[in-house]
Amino acid sequence: MTSLQQVNPRVLGVRVSPHSTRQSLAAHITYQITKGVQKPFKKVIDVSSGDPHKAGMKPISFVRQVLAVCLYPELLHDENLPQDARLRAQKLLAACGGGSVGSYSSPATGLRYVVQNIAEFITRRDAGVPSYPQAIVNTSGSRKALTMMMKLLASGVGENQTGVLTPTPCPYTLPMLLDEAGVTLAPYQLREDRGWAVDLEELQLALKTARGCCQPRAIYISNPGNPTGHVQDRKSIEEVIRFAATEGLFLLVDEVYQDSVYGQGREFVSYKKVLFEMGEEYSETVEMVSFHSLSNGIMGECGLRGGYMETVNLDPAVMRCLVTIQSTNSPPILPQLALDLMVNPLTCGDPSYGTYTQEILFSQVTLAQNAQRAWEFLNRLPGMSCQPAMGGIHLYPQLLIPPGMIEQAKILGVEADVLYCQRLLEEEGVCVGAGCENGQTDKNYHLRLCVLVPPGTLEEVLARLSSFHLRLLDRFPLPDRGVKDRELVENSVA
Amino acid sequence: MTSLQQVNPRVLGVRVSPHSTRQSLAAHITYQITKGVQKPFKKVIDVSSGDPHKAGMKPISFVRQVLAVCLYPELLHDENLPQDARLRAQKLLAACGGGSVGSYSSPATGLRYVVQNIAEFITRRDAGVPSYPQAIVNTSGSRKALTMMMKLLASGVGENQTGVLTPTPCPYTLPMLLDEAGVTLAPYQLREDRGWAVDLEELQLALKTARGCCQPRAIYISNPGNPTGHVQDRKSIEEVIRFAATEGLFLLVDEVYQDSVYGQGREFVSYKKVLFEMGEEYSETVEMVSFHSLSNGIMGECGLRGGYMETVNLDPAVMRCLVTIQSTNSPPILPQLALDLMVNPLTCGDPSYGTYTQEILFSQVTLAQNAQRAWEFLNRLPGMSCQPAMGGIHLYPQLLIPPGMIEQAKILGVEADVLYCQRLLEEEGVCVGAGCENGQTDKNYHLRLCVLVPPGTLEEVLARLSSFHLRLLDRFPLPDRGVKDRELVENSVA
Repeated sequence: MTSLQQVNPRVLGVRVSPHSTRQSLAAHITYQITKGVQKPFKKVIDVSSGDPHKAGMKPISFVRQVLAVCLYPELLHDENLPQDARLRAQKLLAACGGGSVGSYSSPATGLRYVVQNIAEFITRRDAGVPSYPQAIVNTSGSRKALTMMMKLLASGVGENQTGVLTPTPCPYTLPMLLDEAGVTLAPYQLREDRGWAVDLEELQLALKTARGCCQPRAIYISNPGNPTGHVQDRKSIEEVIRFAATEGLFLLVDEVYQDSVYGQGREFVSYKKVLFEMGEEYSETVEMVSFHSLSNGIMGECGLRGGYMETVNLDPAVMRCLVTIQSTNSPPILPQLALDLMVNPLTCGDPSYGTYTQEILFSQVTLAQNAQRAWEFLNRLPGMSCQPAMGGIHLYPQLLIPPGMIEQAKILGVEADVLYCQRLLEEEGVCVGAGCENGQTDKNYHLRLCVLVPPGTLEEVLARLSSFHLRLLDRFPLPDRGVKDRELVENSVA
Repeated sequence: MTSLQQVNPRVLGVRVSPHSTRQSLAAHITYQITKGVQKPFKKVIDVSSGDPHKAGMKPISFVRQVLAVCLYPELLHDENLPQDARLRAQKLLAACGGGSVGSYSSPATGLRYVVQNIAEFITRRDAGVPSYPQAIVNTSGSRKALTMMMKLLASGVGENQTGVLTPTPCPYTLPMLLDEAGVTLAPYQLREDRGWAVDLEELQLALKTARGCCQPRAIYISNPGNPTGHVQDRKSIEEVIRFAATEGLFLLVDEVYQDSVYGQGREFVSYKKVLFEMGEEYSETVEMVSFHSLSNGIMGECGLRGGYMETVNLDPAVMRCLVTIQSTNSPPILPQLALDLMVNPLTCGDPSYGTYTQEILFSQVTLAQNAQRAWEFLNRLPGMSCQPAMGGIHLYPQLLIPPGMIEQAKILGVEADVLYCQRLLEEEGVCVGAGCENGQTDKNYHLRLCVLVPPGTLEEVLARLSSFHLRLLDRFPLPDRGVKDRELVENSVA
């Protein structure tokens, strides 16, 4: 029998995230409730990952109407559905092989019609900086796209292994994904005291540290930041681009929250736009891939699994390698059609435009108001301190864990933040993420909360979290609470 | 800039299939036609891969109705849709996180409700041999599942690299997939003269040959055979299982065409059923994974990308590794719901049962009649000889290519069968597969045709193929035609 010793060492090296264990526990508790086991709460609320529909956010009706018609084209004649949805479905079906969503994607990099519309969207978004269909690859989600890039860049072992500079904190799925690809993580610290900004000195420090342990070949950036909520301004982006150019690093830019910026005076500026405005010295040399997705932000269509990446300055021979590995991985059709709806939205005058705009606005307002509400609430809790978010769908508060619980965690052999989250789930039925899953290895503990949820759900989460937290502090008081709290609050205001 | 030299050697090692080049050519010709370029044909017909909907086969209405309602739950109240479809959609939505197909699959191995139904389906299919939900992993297609297994088993380099025994001919996507996984292909020859049967001596020969070059750790079987159309009987399956047991090989069984057996007196028997009927000596030791999919056979839902694998006798620690790597790869929801519809079909008494049964029957009859029709037709062409198929959706005729064309191919630096397919596409607008893509490296040339297409389309394909083939033989006569033809025909009848 194949033993663990015979399993691919890379697979064995994939760290098992406490997130998975917590998900199983959440499922178990939910199961217990359905079986009549008494709990102090009626249902588990999971805000540990960005999964808005699971938490009760509604999909955009027009998107679902069009996709439903594409699946069952008899609905083209169903007058219960808006005419513009049916017309759009007709157009999209014509882009599919044999006019059916049941045929393979040909080419495997994405249906031509969709890819063309993605390129036009990017060009509009970037005020005319051109985007080319042949540089775009549709995938089954942005993580899948990143996996492909990692597969392309991975090589060597030990000191010769490809390294990627990754932010701390980073999206919680990133470490596992890089482990699996056989790539070394070379973490750079984001500056919590500056709202989780990217800091040049930290990048340089990380690169220097990495150079002894691996071959750093790329830098991964999440902007707007997951889970930090930070949104980079043009100056910060320029700094990162110059750093990548000087050090010969490939830029991997996760821009999946580009439609979810709500910080006052902040707007999303793409790396590509900045790159091209920095002149040919950069725009013709710096290699870059930008990721976008259906799952994140306002669409929130996680279950469809769709995304794309746009490559910039890739050697054509290397691009061909990417196309080759994509050909064994033909992406599903429906998410591609949903991508088309994302990049090619309804415009004023379309019959469904009113509803469509209202639904999007509702999500945007919910997100912004929730972020503000949760930020204020969390900052009022003793021992908790949260940077204001400007975009993305998470908050990432720092928390002081009482020494009593840290001791308990040591005995149990788990991180203290993981224990905190586990107890919160058990006692209050609220599932949040632990900062260590986001690569936070220092003793500044953090929590991760998705705030793109219905406002009532958020209130419930905050109430239960607060009740657990205050009970915990009663049980295990914080030492010298006043001082530490004051420091935290001062940091967060600074 | 990242040069080809810096790309992951495994990615560089992925062979580029002439199939991709031909697909691009087909797309280019189609584009030319839309732009008014005159061709001797009105449209390209592609039967080179199993993509029934692209070729014009219709989906099963009930499946599409249910999925459409799941996407847009307002349709639950639309009386234009059958009531049983709406009820089924309601049940499936209840199995999704937040009642929405837009939430992530939790757990990542598949929605509990669906996985439970898959296990029950397998148990029914195998006359009570039990199947357990925890042994089942839902994936974005069967190739994805195989990729996961390869990722798990891959290790070592050079002589220590994991090797997999693979049939010749094999599915055309297999070589690329194994290359990408970093696994050595150790080919075993199927016996064309016995209708492409698996032969024990060939297995032993392949294993012996492989042992010098790699560490053979698994054997891949395609039953019903892709592209051969062979269906193994119980005795042949027992032989393979005994061989795997004796040699300590992991069994990777591709059973995606299990619902597409039409050969007289043939039926599909699963490897698992046979394994368990061989007694504990085998059923408690032989490691096995069986793959199934939405794409293949009667459903033909290639564009949805859904499949599952069932593992047997995996070390629980190894199974946990599989679950870990799945957690970065959460599969889409809709294909899981479609899998549920596949394994949990309508039964007599359901309002849609009549239409549903008729549609399935139509596909089954079309497949069987097309296979018979194409087999007879191809065997009548000079220089062509085809084994009768008993299942699956392909025919795989052998063809004699005239020396004149073989010479041309040498000059152009391509395989002669690839040149044959290219010319056929250019001159007649018919896209078929070349045997070399199925791993056929000897000088017995073959073609690959999917026959699950509308009967009219098949007639068109056969007429164009025949017209090209006869023209070719006029241009380049076959040497000593009579004798070779007779031999081929005798082989095919034997």
